[in-house]
Amino acid sequence: MSPAENSTSQIVTAAILVIGDEILSGRTKDKNIGFIAERLTAIGIQLREVRVVPDIEDEIVAAVNALRARFTYLFTTGGIGPTHDDITADCIAKALGVPIDIDPRALALMRPYYEARRLELTPTRLRMARIPAGAILLKNPISAAPGFMVANVIVMAGVPAVMQLMLDDAEPYLRTGARMLSETVKLDRPEGEIAELFAAHAKEHPDVSMGSYPCFRAGGGFGTDLVLRSTDKGRLMVALEGLRRKLEAKGVL
Amino acid sequence: MSPAENSTSQIVTAAILVIGDEILSGRTKDKNIGFIAERLTAIGIQLREVRVVPDIEDEIVAAVNALRARFTYLFTTGGIGPTHDDITADCIAKALGVPIDIDPRALALMRPYYEARRLELTPTRLRMARIPAGAILLKNPISAAPGFMVANVIVMAGVPAVMQLMLDDAEPYLRTGARMLSETVKLDRPEGEIAELFAAHAKEHPDVSMGSYPCFRAGGGFGTDLVLRSTDKGRLMVALEGLRRKLEAKGVL
Repeated sequence: MSPAENSTSQIVTAAILVIGDEILSGRTKDKNIGFIAERLTAIGIQLREVRVVPDIEDEIVAAVNALRARFTYLFTTGGIGPTHDDITADCIAKALGVPIDIDPRALALMRPYYEARRLELTPTRLRMARIPAGAILLKNPISAAPGFMVANVIVMAGVPAVMQLMLDDAEPYLRTGARMLSETVKLDRPEGEIAELFAAHAKEHPDVSMGSYPCFRAGGGFGTDLVLRSTDKGRLMVALEGLRRKLEAKGVL
Repeated sequence: MSPAENSTSQIVTAAILVIGDEILSGRTKDKNIGFIAERLTAIGIQLREVRVVPDIEDEIVAAVNALRARFTYLFTTGGIGPTHDDITADCIAKALGVPIDIDPRALALMRPYYEARRLELTPTRLRMARIPAGAILLKNPISAAPGFMVANVIVMAGVPAVMQLMLDDAEPYLRTGARMLSETVKLDRPEGEIAELFAAHAKEHPDVSMGSYPCFRAGGGFGTDLVLRSTDKGRLMVALEGLRRKLEAKGVL
């Protein structure tokens, strides 16, 4: 399959499904959602939903089918290791209704790694070569066992370093669309002071999405980040300049 | 309403709904999921699902109704500030089919804070006093505007410091159940080496959930954390001791 053609005018959407009891128990703090979110925004794919589900087949299959139907792409993390709780690949095959078996291409990627370390490819390690039919493999330079992309589902490891390399490898196959651009205005005021002005400004610019995010400034006291987002650079800049003028007129910028 | 009675034998479940475009764009990295997950585990509530959705009414209402029906509690974070993109309280009222209006109790909490700072309670700030009918208020010692609990939905701020105080305030009202206990065995081996042994052990102890988590050890090289979880301390310890014996016999512990 050749890398997807990219268009700059279309909207391309995505969801993330994080699979793993360890995230739900709080034992492991997820680091993948933020990383994937930032990357997708940068390349012109709009992340629209995230779910975290436990290592339970029915839950995984239901979430995969709900999310792959609604969005251009579904990215999953976790559950592709060698142990009995690693059931993601089989769940994806079940959700898509495609066969799954040991894939000779995956085996070819794994064999040199294990041979170099004089490790046996035991039946449990071979589980990591189980790949749904029709998948593109995503390389894993760290520990060999690959991720994969099948239909519109991209299946990656849960270990952040490995996930990040698999995401790199998937990128050329992803159709990307209009990049969401953003501009931030930072105020050293609580958001209550500018909420009315900001709401009116948002109404005047329905094609630019505007969000207000309260924060604590390093020096103490409340701050507010006003974030303007649009795929159209011209409209974004017009909205930004208009907002700055209004904030200056009010004496808060 | 008096604090809920707690039982140690029942299973109490929960979901988290994170509301906010800023998480989906990658601009803000969520810190609430991990915190709430850990707290719920500690007090005997099992977190079963997490979703992140954008600041869009239909999406929020649909997610609230899907999650509050399936789990004992639903915890939400984000979207309760004064700006036009803060629509959580109204979405919760809509999802539950209850009226929403400015709540005199919320106003009483907010007024001293704003008076002390010589700030006016503008119409946008008053939006933060809009609370669905029948709610318990959750105090916000940082910036006054409260969170709330209505039916089985606990609505909290997105700013982590504020969210954490609201969660403290909600805790006495939560029914808690059997606490999930866990024990971890740390190995300096890749998980492929123990996968077969571990799968067989998990099959022998169906009442103890077992997960295997690969990681990189600080000194370099692969490590594996084997995590055993159960609400029954006796069974957990039997499974743990059995596992340690098997790992020792194999020479990996």
